[in-house]
Amino acid sequence: MRMYDLIEKKKLGEELSTEEIYHIINGYTNGEIPDYQISALLMAIYFKGMNVRERYDLTMAMRDSGDILDLSSIDGVKIDKHSTGGVGDKVTLVLGPIIASIGVPVAKMSGRGLGHTGGTIDKLEAFPGFNASLSEEDFISQVNDIKIAVTGQSKNLAPADKKLYALRDVTATVDEISLITGSIMSKKLAAGTDAIVLDVTVGDGAFMKNKESALELAQSMVDIGKRADKKIAAVLTNMDEPLGFAIGNDLEVIEAINALNGNGPDDLMEVVYELGSQMIVFSGIETDKSKARKLMENAVASGKAFEKFCQFIERQGGDVAFARDINKFKPANYVIPVEAKEDGYIHAMKAEAFGLASMSLGGGRETFDDVIDMSVGIVLAKKVGDYIKKGEAICYVHANDKAKAEHAIEMINKATVISADKCDHMKLIIDIVE
Amino acid sequence: MRMYDLIEKKKLGEELSTEEIYHIINGYTNGEIPDYQISALLMAIYFKGMNVRERYDLTMAMRDSGDILDLSSIDGVKIDKHSTGGVGDKVTLVLGPIIASIGVPVAKMSGRGLGHTGGTIDKLEAFPGFNASLSEEDFISQVNDIKIAVTGQSKNLAPADKKLYALRDVTATVDEISLITGSIMSKKLAAGTDAIVLDVTVGDGAFMKNKESALELAQSMVDIGKRADKKIAAVLTNMDEPLGFAIGNDLEVIEAINALNGNGPDDLMEVVYELGSQMIVFSGIETDKSKARKLMENAVASGKAFEKFCQFIERQGGDVAFARDINKFKPANYVIPVEAKEDGYIHAMKAEAFGLASMSLGGGRETFDDVIDMSVGIVLAKKVGDYIKKGEAICYVHANDKAKAEHAIEMINKATVISADKCDHMKLIIDIVE
Repeated sequence: MRMYDLIEKKKLGEELSTEEIYHIINGYTNGEIPDYQISALLMAIYFKGMNVRERYDLTMAMRDSGDILDLSSIDGVKIDKHSTGGVGDKVTLVLGPIIASIGVPVAKMSGRGLGHTGGTIDKLEAFPGFNASLSEEDFISQVNDIKIAVTGQSKNLAPADKKLYALRDVTATVDEISLITGSIMSKKLAAGTDAIVLDVTVGDGAFMKNKESALELAQSMVDIGKRADKKIAAVLTNMDEPLGFAIGNDLEVIEAINALNGNGPDDLMEVVYELGSQMIVFSGIETDKSKARKLMENAVASGKAFEKFCQFIERQGGDVAFARDINKFKPANYVIPVEAKEDGYIHAMKAEAFGLASMSLGGGRETFDDVIDMSVGIVLAKKVGDYIKKGEAICYVHANDKAKAEHAIEMINKATVISADKCDHMKLIIDIVE
Repeated sequence: MRMYDLIEKKKLGEELSTEEIYHIINGYTNGEIPDYQISALLMAIYFKGMNVRERYDLTMAMRDSGDILDLSSIDGVKIDKHSTGGVGDKVTLVLGPIIASIGVPVAKMSGRGLGHTGGTIDKLEAFPGFNASLSEEDFISQVNDIKIAVTGQSKNLAPADKKLYALRDVTATVDEISLITGSIMSKKLAAGTDAIVLDVTVGDGAFMKNKESALELAQSMVDIGKRADKKIAAVLTNMDEPLGFAIGNDLEVIEAINALNGNGPDDLMEVVYELGSQMIVFSGIETDKSKARKLMENAVASGKAFEKFCQFIERQGGDVAFARDINKFKPANYVIPVEAKEDGYIHAMKAEAFGLASMSLGGGRETFDDVIDMSVGIVLAKKVGDYIKKGEAICYVHANDKAKAEHAIEMINKATVISADKCDHMKLIIDIVE
């Protein structure tokens, strides 16, 4: 099998066989096929795509390139939740403890943030002492004991994806549906859960900028999950504006704590309840989604969900005093209001720009070597659809550096659209694919 | 300027600027831009193409990546002739001496053969002692003295093309019109002549398999040549069947000698006269193509052309006794007729297969390290359109190894189509672009 012929085949729009796809992925992972042939193939795939069978084979070949977690010693139906990324996305921090408190085992591998979106592991490290590197043994026994554990990726999961992603990232071949599907689903399948709930974000701050492409990606991932005999559903959620009010690590953790205490923003809770009720149905604890949602609401109202969060933080070595008293988080030096320049309805708070503004304050990474400033970020005072008067605060910039604050304010002003026309609040749940 | 953005731009079908194209070619030539980014770009170009302005810039950037020959010290209008390759193509050996004998300076850089097509330098080395590595000084003074010199590429001409071609060759990105144009024309422009006549072969044994694609390539190269202020014309010639009767190094040289002595095959002479008359018109010696053709016919009939050939071989150290007595060429051990299996008209003698059959006898190279067997090859007894009776020879295989001969005969039988229906001889000159 010559790699040349496989590139030519895809270039002409033909289907690659299962054997050919494994040959490509194995050959690339072990270094036998050079970067320059793979990048030519990736560009051909960008133009010619892959059908569902090819996507499945690509996903499985990438999954099989490394370790596959064995979670069989965890009791119950194991469910993974994955988001395609967003600004102000603290869903896992809220969702995990709620469903764990209901009895759904949450065995979650999470990543760190890069670019304009944050990462769950970074946020959990807001609790001094929190250990995000659990051994496989500790991870499993913790889930069996308290139903929830979150750890950074420790095993060698889907190394083919790591290599391919790095290449796609420098050859302008990231935005192709088969390749995105393979990348996400190979890691999800290697993570060894029985069911997967996908949060496919849509809009300005998301990877998928419009509903059509997000729907296509959601359908593609659900197709692959079903072929692999997983229970799977995808929820398309709005990411045109930031989710909730807080952006930035400590600020988002505080918002999550408030949410677990019953004071969560409507949009955040809408996403949490939609994803969570789907997970509870997959777990078999409840068959009806609206009843599952009731269970979740009760878990929050009763304080059970917040206590589960505290137990989880404590078990992984984090200082739970911060959860019980949010005033313990060290605030940023400056909290500066960004004032509206006119009266009117807010038509846009462009999520990507808000994410980049938070990053520019020191709240995110441009490269994996950057150190995050935990205290900085942005707290919205209004959301799209709200009326605002000239001089009122659109949001508050939390900064440790005045020059950086000014730069962020400039970005925020550019990213906010106010006009006299009335404007609806954004609909959070755009579609569901199952 | 980030290479990532340039790949993305071309992927989206946008135009690359002059500055961007030079950045890419210079960066790749000096090793600053890695193979894997260039191969992704090449595949994007395959799908999105380049307009005439981009092709011109690509060609000029590649030309400028190395030396540019200065032929100004040669008297008269310097004209290059280039063929996109064929089977049995000994045109240069015949054409060069004819027009040189009329006074057109022939300062030709030639290459060696690879794959199913032969190379002029290999054929000239059929003359013992022939020196194909002239210094620039000797090359120029020889053209001034006797109007003709042929040398292998000695200077560092268009190194960007060498690097790009090697990459295209392993990434299935050879067959794209802008890239082919850049590759051929960058070398032609670096070779420093005032005019260029292109022989664009069309058909089974050619790189361009049909008239449409050949016409597109011809037009593209002529456009670029004109933009670079060169006199330029392209002649589309048939390469569905081999040109002339002989395939193989010594065999083709013998056919060329016979042609210079007035006994050339009709199809070969048709191509020689068409290209040559265009070259004579470019030289200014004659303004009318049909009169130019008459000059050439007279040069052959009078023996002037053959004497020029002998003078040229002698001047470059070759043993001219071989030209004056073709019996001095050592024949192959076996000359085996390939017999027709039925009566009928010959509808096809597929050129590529005949070329590959000759190569399999030892007459060509698969890699540049292979040593050529000069005596082997194939001599056709019939051409497409001829009537043949069962048992008559289609052609003769000249071989030094019986097993190889049998394999070649099998290939030839597969590549020859005989049927009772009448069939015309092939038209040699398909189109002219100027």
